[in-house]
Formats: sequence, C-alpha cells, structure tokens
Amino acid sequence: MAITENRRTPGSGRAPAGAAVLRDEVTSAIRDALMKELADVGYGRLSIEAVARRAGVGKTAIYRRWPSKVDMVIEIVSAVAGRRLPLPDTGNLRDDLRMLLSALALALHHPLASQIIPDLLAEAARNPQIAETLLDTLRTHQRDIAARILGRAVDRGELPAAADPGLAIDLIIGPLYWRAAIVRTPFAPAYLDSLADAVVVSLGGRTTTNPS
Amino acid sequence: MAITENRRTPGSGRAPAGAAVLRDEVTSAIRDALMKELADVGYGRLSIEAVARRAGVGKTAIYRRWPSKVDMVIEIVSAVAGRRLPLPDTGNLRDDLRMLLSALALALHHPLASQIIPDLLAEAARNPQIAETLLDTLRTHQRDIAARILGRAVDRGELPAAADPGLAIDLIIGPLYWRAAIVRTPFAPAYLDSLADAVVVSLGGRTTTNPS
Repeated sequence: MAITENRRTPGSGRAPAGAAVLRDEVTSAIRDALMKELADVGYGRLSIEAVARRAGVGKTAIYRRWPSKVDMVIEIVSAVAGRRLPLPDTGNLRDDLRMLLSALALALHHPLASQIIPDLLAEAARNPQIAETLLDTLRTHQRDIAARILGRAVDRGELPAAADPGLAIDLIIGPLYWRAAIVRTPFAPAYLDSLADAVVVSLGGRTTTNPS
Repeated sequence: MAITENRRTPGSGRAPAGAAVLRDEVTSAIRDALMKELADVGYGRLSIEAVARRAGVGKTAIYRRWPSKVDMVIEIVSAVAGRRLPLPDTGNLRDDLRMLLSALALALHHPLASQIIPDLLAEAARNPQIAETLLDTLRTHQRDIAARILGRAVDRGELPAAADPGLAIDLIIGPLYWRAAIVRTPFAPAYLDSLADAVVVSLGGRTTTNPS
C-alpha cells in the first residue's frame, strides 16, 4: 500500500494548493529504494515504477521531487558518493595513508563502489548529464582528501611542497581501486601496509612512522 | 536483409543435416555488432534481436553459435579484453613503464575500457558467470604484463627480487586507470613521465633511464 503525502493528521489542515509538502521520510524511503534498485538491476533496467513500489509510495511522490529518472539518480547517487570519509590525522603521512586505505577498502565493499558507480560510469558515456555531475562529485571528493592529507604532510616537512596533488591522489586511490573494485583479487591487511609504504615513497617521502 | 548461411555457392552442395557451417564473416559481423551494441546501450538493455539486426544476420545465426546472451557476451568480450598489449622492451624498467603507460592510456580511450568493461563489472555483481570469466581474463592479462616487465627488471638487477608482482601491477595500472577511466581528469604527456618515475620509485627502483 502506498504511503500518501496528503493524509490528514490531527490538527493539521490541508497544504495550500500548489504547495506540496515533501515529507522527509518519503524522500528517505525513495532514496533507499533507489540505491537498492540500482544495485539489483542497474541504471538501464531501472524503472520509476519499481522504485516507487519498493519504497511503498506512489509514482507521483517521485515525480513531485524529480522530473525524471536521470535527475533522481544523479541527485541521490551524488549525495551518497559525496559523503566524506572520516579522514585520519595521526601526525604522520604513512599512518594517515594506512588508515585512509583501510577506510577505502571498506568503502569499496559497498554496492555503491562495486556496482552502482561502475554502472553509472558506463552509462555516463551515453549520457553527458550523468557524466558531468557524477565525475564532478568524485573529483571534488578526491581533491578534498588530497588537500587534507597531503597538505598536512607538506606542512610537517614530510613531503616536498612541489608534490603534484593530482598525481598523488591517483597513486593513493588508484591501486586499491584497481585491486578491490576492478580485478577483485583478495588481499590481506599486510597488502595495505605495503601499499601505504609504496605510496609514501612514490610521493617522495620516507616510510618511517616516526619522522623527526 | 539478413545474410544467410545456407546459401548455395557454385559447386558446393548442402551441408549435411545437423552439421551447420559457421561462416567466419558472419561470426565476425556478429562480434562487431555486439561490441557496438554493448557500448551504445549496455548489457542490461542489449537484445539478441538488436545485435542480429545490426550484424545483418538472422537471430538463428546467433543462437547457432551461443546458447544465450550471457554466453555470447562473455566469450566475445573476454576475447577482445584478452588481446595482448604490445609490451615494450627498452632495456630499462623506467622506459618500459613509460611506454606501457602510453599504450594503456590509448587503450583506455577505447569503449571497451571506458564503457563495456565497467558496465559488465557492474553486471558481474548480479551474474557470477560474468564475474568469473571476465575477472579471470583481466587477472591473467595483468599477471602476464607483470611477469614480462618486472621479471626483466629483476634479472637486470633494477628491482629487488622480493618485489611483490601483485602490488606492482596495481601500482602500474591502478593510478592511470583511476585517472583515465574513472574520474576522467585530462592529463598531459608529462603526467605519464611523472607517473612512470613514481612507480619505479615505489617498487624500490631508481628513476634513471640509464642504470649502470
């Protein structure tokens, strides 16, 4: 049965005509349903009808919020993908990277990383609107990581100020993404230790966890 | 109009019943059509009918070769993805890597890398048969690259024999894949120079192009 947004609650009058009230719990149910549908069937096969059914709402509740499937997908996925990772601040670059890699390894297990984003990136080549918005979110997110972790390392004198943050972020995220999200070869925690060491060295730093 | 495989050619009789002749040019037309359809509409929306139409053949020509859509896609995409990159042999690791990165950067512009493989990897989470076959191909392919480029560097004494080939290949392919195929941030050729240098250093080697 569909949740209706026009249901009268005691003491409340009707919303004035033309001023639809968008209930947060309906928006939230639609968001959850969309993410599950995207993971289950992918963008190509996703229908507004199936999302509405899964959310327990009517299609009107969706069209009141987004004019189309692509608008709904872009807004919701960008918001989820743009959630900030809790970034570590251990006092040295190598340990910051090691903790960041652990957080990334966990995040890469989420269907968002293993299914939804790859699916939308494939779709993005066909749909420029998806491409621009989703890639902007990813780029902003990673620039943010670079600014916070690398900036502190440069301030502490652990890295040369000339380090290219664009290259650095590719070296930090790329290898683990390739391993965990693309070829999906299992790895032990020691792999993340070696990767953190390798990345520090590749950036021109030292691997000691106790720089003086 | 469909190409028929049963057309009589002068001097040829009918193939004996039950022994269908699979003409290579038909197989090749189906393969091309499938790759284009995958890039255009993605796995989820791909229909055997559309592939047949695009190839100019009847659906029977496809079903004679593959029992289902998933079988056709796995066999054809794996064959294309498994084609070996021409691997350089310049005599030193840094230049080998620089040339490999150039070749990869070109390959990553192909719809196979930017659309078809991401799309199928998203699908793979829903379809274990796709996952196993496609990932096996990718893993074999990259093990092959690692064995050839790193093995020579170790033989020349440029890298410690203890270098982990799994980690090494992630460091070689991962950053460029992330940059070119995921966040799609443009880069100049100098980026590939810096990346080659960074990877050599991260593997425990030196960046000189003339090791003595």
